[in-house]
Amino acid sequence: MTDIIEPLALSKDAQDLLFRSARTANAFTDEPVTEDQVRAIHDLVKYAPTSMNIQPLRVTLLRSRESRERLVQHMAEGNQAKTLNAPLTAILSLDGDFHERAGEFFPDREEMIKGLFGSDEAMRLSTAQLNAALQIGYFIIGVRAAGLAAGPMTGFDAAAIDAEFFSGSARKTLVVVNIGRPAGENFPRLPRLRYEDVVTEL
Amino acid sequence: MTDIIEPLALSKDAQDLLFRSARTANAFTDEPVTEDQVRAIHDLVKYAPTSMNIQPLRVTLLRSRESRERLVQHMAEGNQAKTLNAPLTAILSLDGDFHERAGEFFPDREEMIKGLFGSDEAMRLSTAQLNAALQIGYFIIGVRAAGLAAGPMTGFDAAAIDAEFFSGSARKTLVVVNIGRPAGENFPRLPRLRYEDVVTEL
Repeated sequence: MTDIIEPLALSKDAQDLLFRSARTANAFTDEPVTEDQVRAIHDLVKYAPTSMNIQPLRVTLLRSRESRERLVQHMAEGNQAKTLNAPLTAILSLDGDFHERAGEFFPDREEMIKGLFGSDEAMRLSTAQLNAALQIGYFIIGVRAAGLAAGPMTGFDAAAIDAEFFSGSARKTLVVVNIGRPAGENFPRLPRLRYEDVVTEL
Repeated sequence: MTDIIEPLALSKDAQDLLFRSARTANAFTDEPVTEDQVRAIHDLVKYAPTSMNIQPLRVTLLRSRESRERLVQHMAEGNQAKTLNAPLTAILSLDGDFHERAGEFFPDREEMIKGLFGSDEAMRLSTAQLNAALQIGYFIIGVRAAGLAAGPMTGFDAAAIDAEFFSGSARKTLVVVNIGRPAGENFPRLPRLRYEDVVTEL
């Protein structure tokens, strides 16, 4: 199989950095991930689109041993050691009260958005889930744009993490991601579905 | 506000192409979007990660006037004309039967994955929703990587689109996206949330 590089405007180096050479990491070097790096990731991926600009994703950075230990007790066993040992771990959650910030993210429609989402909790949560997940996709690309590797995980008890970290708020954990410089050997890459399996034209 | 460019490994040109200069488009030139371009987008974004490599996103391309008319009758009025006039429209859906392809995407754990997801439909759908949405984030970045603009929309009757296009299958529409070269003036960009509003460190 030959990579299809030519029809893209993005340079081959950038294609490799973000997608072709990038891999999910399970082990990291000791090199710290700085706040400057996380600020740069946010400053880049914040521009990617969400429905009505709602931006429901929230990021909780865990750096200390103590905060990691609070987290890993709620994770699948296979995710615990690598999370304790990563330079930085982020809990990626949705804010179920995102509409309260409408004055900041859509000033001209503040009242419309507050009314629309304030009156329908089910619609508010499903909209937040979809859009926060889009933003998690952007965030993973942003980690790679910083020259770092992401190790996203969904093997955990989300309700228990919410109770541990987000009690009394409307945050709901979606993904936990380890961040750092990758170390050691990786598993062989698993197969990707073919174009014909994914794309249909009508 | 100054852009934070330096801590990133990704070139400034690529940052601009994918995030800083890229905008959601509501009007497009007549230039066609070719199958080669869509194949190149898929060939790039297919490498981005999903839980257990499940890759639940499916893409239905609508090119003909007839297929667009079937679609737009189920969309919010404000999304109809721009969707009829875009060079290409894609329905981005999840495949609720993604686990049946486990032999292709995770051959060593085919039976485990089929058993895990086959026995719990609620878990299967919530996993597909999260991961298909991650992949929609990657897909939007991929459209931009091809030098094109995306116009993602969620203003439609998803159940009606599913009945129209996906009857008898387990596909569920999440986002519809117009794709092409942008034309005309765009709205001013809406404000983005600040780092301090999004990121907390514990």
